[in-house]
Amino acid sequence: VPAVAAAIRSLAVRGAPLIGIAGAYGTALAAVRAAAGRGRSARTRRALMDVDAAAAALAKARPTAVNLPAAVARVLAAVRAAAEAPDADPEALAGAALREAVRIDDEEREACVAIGRFGAALVPDGARFLTHCNTGTLATNWDGTAQAVITAAFDAGRGSTVWVDETRPLLQGARLTAWELQRRGIPMTLVADTAAGSLMARGLVDLVVVGADRIAANGDVANKIGTYQLAVLAKHHGVPFYVAAPVSTLDPGTPTGSDIPIEDRDPREVTTLNGRAVAPAGTPAAGQAFDVTPAALVSAIVTDRGVLRAPFRRSIGAASRSAPSVREPALASRREPA
Amino acid sequence: VPAVAAAIRSLAVRGAPLIGIAGAYGTALAAVRAAAGRGRSARTRRALMDVDAAAAALAKARPTAVNLPAAVARVLAAVRAAAEAPDADPEALAGAALREAVRIDDEEREACVAIGRFGAALVPDGARFLTHCNTGTLATNWDGTAQAVITAAFDAGRGSTVWVDETRPLLQGARLTAWELQRRGIPMTLVADTAAGSLMARGLVDLVVVGADRIAANGDVANKIGTYQLAVLAKHHGVPFYVAAPVSTLDPGTPTGSDIPIEDRDPREVTTLNGRAVAPAGTPAAGQAFDVTPAALVSAIVTDRGVLRAPFRRSIGAASRSAPSVREPALASRREPA
Repeated sequence: VPAVAAAIRSLAVRGAPLIGIAGAYGTALAAVRAAAGRGRSARTRRALMDVDAAAAALAKARPTAVNLPAAVARVLAAVRAAAEAPDADPEALAGAALREAVRIDDEEREACVAIGRFGAALVPDGARFLTHCNTGTLATNWDGTAQAVITAAFDAGRGSTVWVDETRPLLQGARLTAWELQRRGIPMTLVADTAAGSLMARGLVDLVVVGADRIAANGDVANKIGTYQLAVLAKHHGVPFYVAAPVSTLDPGTPTGSDIPIEDRDPREVTTLNGRAVAPAGTPAAGQAFDVTPAALVSAIVTDRGVLRAPFRRSIGAASRSAPSVREPALASRREPA
Repeated sequence: VPAVAAAIRSLAVRGAPLIGIAGAYGTALAAVRAAAGRGRSARTRRALMDVDAAAAALAKARPTAVNLPAAVARVLAAVRAAAEAPDADPEALAGAALREAVRIDDEEREACVAIGRFGAALVPDGARFLTHCNTGTLATNWDGTAQAVITAAFDAGRGSTVWVDETRPLLQGARLTAWELQRRGIPMTLVADTAAGSLMARGLVDLVVVGADRIAANGDVANKIGTYQLAVLAKHHGVPFYVAAPVSTLDPGTPTGSDIPIEDRDPREVTTLNGRAVAPAGTPAAGQAFDVTPAALVSAIVTDRGVLRAPFRRSIGAASRSAPSVREPALASRREPA
């Protein structure tokens, strides 16, 4: 479990849906280990305490993406429910945990497909996309979120090219999205993050599609730093700005964007690149990893339950009521097992 | 001369004012060499042809900054004038060239001081600046342009801090501006180019100050890629957006921004960093090095002749009529020496 949490923290596993899935399996892992007599105890009560502790550690490995605490909370809730059965034993808890983790995994895979299908329908013929960060196979367990919209549109013959923001500081666009799109044979051009405005001004961008780490009840979107300024630029140039995310990224329990915890990462991610200094030693830097795009700048949110439009409070509420997720409050309650 | 041109092309010398000065001295160098009997001939007519050829090569080393062709044209014009004297000899031509290059050098030094003085007067108390690229001592022969405004404001006790865009692809902000500001003891924080919008949204930026490579007759500004989107973001957030440049960067001969030649550099500047790949081998990338900010997004242009405001066609016309510069057409005419 500490290794799973460390993998999430160090971004060895990243992308909101994928860290949710990793958190779910990490929580299940604690249950499986407890059932195998490893861990501190094989007794049901101790097994539940182990799972509880694992869930708490995993859920807080990173703060911004809601998928992580939400998926962990779902597995924990399944374990707690199993623990309430009269004949509960650690094996039953492990089985329940693993089944719920697999269910989340399956749902997220289906979500990628559905997001691609709903999103592609919004894409005009010959579309020139601009995207940010990485939202593909390396951020999910299937075709991705924003990237699923792009690949589905190309599969349907409606794509023309993709401008890929390199996405400093960690270059997820340059390292991951460029690799994934080329591997799929999709025409793309890598651009510095400084080029987006100029591309739009020159009429070279038909739509922006990005992912999300958490979407508040009012439609405000937390996503990789740089997303917000793309949304402002899109608005200025009359370019549609779409956010693509599974319903597991909707967080009706968080009222607005300003309530979303924004991760501050090590400033050395800005002052170095691939381990080499890009600034003089000791240069102070800001490591803010995410920003918040207000709902007013979002043209639509493409989810696996359909395309959500303003007023988002209503459309997000309806979409998330239809979702199976158990939310953070369940995790926070930490009630003692029966 | 080829080494000077290569230094300009490879950015060993960069910054609009500084490549102008380098071009001026490079042109003078051709005259001095001709007078020393090196080069192809020591005769006056051949000396003038040598200077002409050097000027043509230097002026086109980089296309966007007008300072380069304008400064080269001034030195060439001085040499041509000297060649028209009845007793003209190669030594007289060399003397005239060197005097004009030194004059340009002196003017640009004085321009930095004047820009700082005029600009600092615009800066509110406790100002939190945001700047892009490098516009300091390493881009000029003195305190810089935009950076002179910043340092003069701090000298006057009116600065609070500076957000420094790292400025991909070539990281002039991270490598040069961060170094210069820290060396002067000015509080600064390096940020990824993706952070500018978020900083403004959080109310952490009081004004944006950038330099320029060429300012068209209507006030459109060509500057380092990423400048345009900062201007859009500043407008969206009601943050003043100032351009600081000597009158040698004004180009009344270029009607609008769309007439400014924009340099495309090697796409490998985007796919590598400090010589190391940041994207998979063969990734296509866009190497556009500059963009154009329309005059409507510019709050004011701080020059060494004062602060220019809209309507820029008038204020720029007046400021450049007061300037000693000889413009590109003089260079383009290439008339045969008498």
